[in-house]
Amino acid sequence: MQKRHDLTAFFSPSSIALVGASPSAGKISGIILENLRNSFKGAIYPVNPHYNEVMGLRCHPSIEAIGSPVDLAVYALGAESVPEAILNTGGNAAGAVVVSGGFAEAGPKGVLLEKALKDAARSTGIRVIGPNCLGIYDAVTGLDTFFVPRDRVRRPGRGTLSIISQSGSFAATAIDELATDGIGVARVVSYGNKSDVDEADCLDFLAEDPETKAVAIYVESIEDGRRFVESAARCSAIKPVMAVKVGKSASGISAARSHTGAIAGSYEIYRAAFRKAGIIELNGYEDFLVACKAFGLTSGAAGKRVMIITDGGGMGVNVADECIAAGLTVPPLPEELIEELSAAFPPYFTTGNPLDLTGSATDESFAFALSKTMSGDYYDMVIVAALWGPPALTDNLPGMLAQKPGFNEKPIIACTPGGAYSRERIRLFHEAGLPAFLTPEAAVTAACVLSKRQGRR
Amino acid sequence: MQKRHDLTAFFSPSSIALVGASPSAGKISGIILENLRNSFKGAIYPVNPHYNEVMGLRCHPSIEAIGSPVDLAVYALGAESVPEAILNTGGNAAGAVVVSGGFAEAGPKGVLLEKALKDAARSTGIRVIGPNCLGIYDAVTGLDTFFVPRDRVRRPGRGTLSIISQSGSFAATAIDELATDGIGVARVVSYGNKSDVDEADCLDFLAEDPETKAVAIYVESIEDGRRFVESAARCSAIKPVMAVKVGKSASGISAARSHTGAIAGSYEIYRAAFRKAGIIELNGYEDFLVACKAFGLTSGAAGKRVMIITDGGGMGVNVADECIAAGLTVPPLPEELIEELSAAFPPYFTTGNPLDLTGSATDESFAFALSKTMSGDYYDMVIVAALWGPPALTDNLPGMLAQKPGFNEKPIIACTPGGAYSRERIRLFHEAGLPAFLTPEAAVTAACVLSKRQGRR
Repeated sequence: MQKRHDLTAFFSPSSIALVGASPSAGKISGIILENLRNSFKGAIYPVNPHYNEVMGLRCHPSIEAIGSPVDLAVYALGAESVPEAILNTGGNAAGAVVVSGGFAEAGPKGVLLEKALKDAARSTGIRVIGPNCLGIYDAVTGLDTFFVPRDRVRRPGRGTLSIISQSGSFAATAIDELATDGIGVARVVSYGNKSDVDEADCLDFLAEDPETKAVAIYVESIEDGRRFVESAARCSAIKPVMAVKVGKSASGISAARSHTGAIAGSYEIYRAAFRKAGIIELNGYEDFLVACKAFGLTSGAAGKRVMIITDGGGMGVNVADECIAAGLTVPPLPEELIEELSAAFPPYFTTGNPLDLTGSATDESFAFALSKTMSGDYYDMVIVAALWGPPALTDNLPGMLAQKPGFNEKPIIACTPGGAYSRERIRLFHEAGLPAFLTPEAAVTAACVLSKRQGRR
Repeated sequence: MQKRHDLTAFFSPSSIALVGASPSAGKISGIILENLRNSFKGAIYPVNPHYNEVMGLRCHPSIEAIGSPVDLAVYALGAESVPEAILNTGGNAAGAVVVSGGFAEAGPKGVLLEKALKDAARSTGIRVIGPNCLGIYDAVTGLDTFFVPRDRVRRPGRGTLSIISQSGSFAATAIDELATDGIGVARVVSYGNKSDVDEADCLDFLAEDPETKAVAIYVESIEDGRRFVESAARCSAIKPVMAVKVGKSASGISAARSHTGAIAGSYEIYRAAFRKAGIIELNGYEDFLVACKAFGLTSGAAGKRVMIITDGGGMGVNVADECIAAGLTVPPLPEELIEELSAAFPPYFTTGNPLDLTGSATDESFAFALSKTMSGDYYDMVIVAALWGPPALTDNLPGMLAQKPGFNEKPIIACTPGGAYSRERIRLFHEAGLPAFLTPEAAVTAACVLSKRQGRR
């Protein structure tokens, strides 16, 4: 291998072999085959000596029997069969995804199996993602080895955010949330026990990947800290990189060890590494999702000055409180803007920061307030806390906020708390390109992580 | 008035006059009339000298003209007309809800109007809720003066949680969320500028209200601190009382002043008052909603010891981290339980705390793990972090978890992160009586607030 981080075969294969294919739709291999057939455009070869045909596709007794090498082989076999299967693959596959569990995370016998897997990979020259992982979901190429059914775990459309995750369930849950909320992704990798490909390899690939504009990382453990920091620093010099490290507490550390066989280590060491690598630190699941939505749609704020525009006084106060608690600032509205806005608005609107348009708010009043407060150099971003009670607000609001010219560089974050009606409107904001959240806390977290990428666009 | 806090007329009126009724459905009075007709069982009298009929109901020129006193009069008039209207009502109404804005929150002229309103109330003996409020939503009696349309702001069914809120938009957004998630309420009061009835009056009423099992308070300001602490302490001696105070920061305080004309004051004073009154302090909107769901369905935990059962290793680690960060404990699984569970479960389940049932989880394995870990005195509550990727899980899970006998006293909190499929399952958990949340953070916040009511049941 010339470039250790050339993972192209994993993300853009033109052919895939599924080793362990079976006609049983409920089995892991059946779910993978169905997902591949749903979205992957290249050639798909089921491999299993026990069948001649699987789901209408010709089934081959071995990868060698396909007749030409494949770019990617996916192994859905019992752990004990995997090392031999890799050896038998020989030079007939460039990359391997091993989704099977039962390796280092499963005790002494599994540790030996994982060593055998590593040896097989090394001797054949096959790069391996996994074992104990979901593998790859790639919205650019349609590759999908995630063995979770699509009716339970939705797949996002094409976007510019890439995710790398040690935990498969975390990755699956995250893409399900993003898909439901209408946020797209580029590449998603669940790499599990990382017997070969690890987070540093993925970062090297994603740094140079033109489809990827931001990277979110979930880690439980990092073994080669120096290499990770180097790769992450290279990547974060080009595009935002953010990370959550779980297994912070003793209980969490011990659970993480059982989970992927990894030693989680002290959280302080990780924080220092993140800082050194220019990684934006995220605190947990909620932060991770918020940051994915924020950087999935925008690219960072130039500073910490937040303008708040609302139609619900109480909600505006709440957002202001959260901003201050999070270390952002809520500078008062400058005199000239107070004059201009007071002249245009009825006297019962509160022309301050927060700016309260009250229950008489209209789409136009929101858009006007936004265009005025975002012009000049008063604020770095705006949180629009829109409650839908005011009857004059319409579904045109998100589009009107997004189309105001002249502040493309300043993120506009929507905060739209409430029940069914508000929740359905989240997608409208996302379709307009504005990250939108159901709570003041989440909107302010978004503002906060965006402000950590200041000056780096 | 014998008992200053006898607010019965506000919540259980047998007759209501709507002063300022108009045939225009989009106007505030039109929305109120429609909502009253939808759910209120008593007599409804539109009052407006300009109409003979409104929405098919006979319209009266004045309250006096109705012919007999009403229990409650709702005023949807311009602020400048309200004081005189109250005076004209004379002794013909026991209580008044003034939804109109334009009083103390709107500058010097409004301050004078609010004083005139107070004088009118005092001279006529009418108790007043408002002005600048939404008034009352009462799921017990069907009374609904919230002038927000029901297609935008859903109304919860009947439950046992009552909410009192200085902010109308906050109250409306909260009930919309609760309704959407299937959590019921008893009484909800938006009291706005509190020219007469304030939070202490409401607490006095709710303390003795048999329909109310828990009380959640949103305040921006409290003027009579001593009376508030006395009333809250009386109430919290009987049932859980929790409160969020917004306007903590300077920006927030200034916004709160514009919002309801109130001086918000230092947050430390409020915290001390909350502590003295036995009130559970909530940090903001997200906390408020979580606490409403938690105490809307359960009644507190005896301690801080959390057991975590999951089918997604990474999510279990996340929940453990959040528990520790929140000051809860995640005690290891005792030896005897490890033995018992290891004997019953396959070897690749991780029998610790968190207990990881992996992607092979079934409804039965969750229920079995729950019944074993909740027996004995090992844990005070359990967080079930259920991801829906594992194909064997069914919609029977919430019911099976709820029906396990013997741990009624120990809250079971569901954490079920994800997209559409998970979000739809939130209601199943709530129907089974288990508070359920979309993030580890929210589930742990719920555990945390429930642990603050230990020993008080």
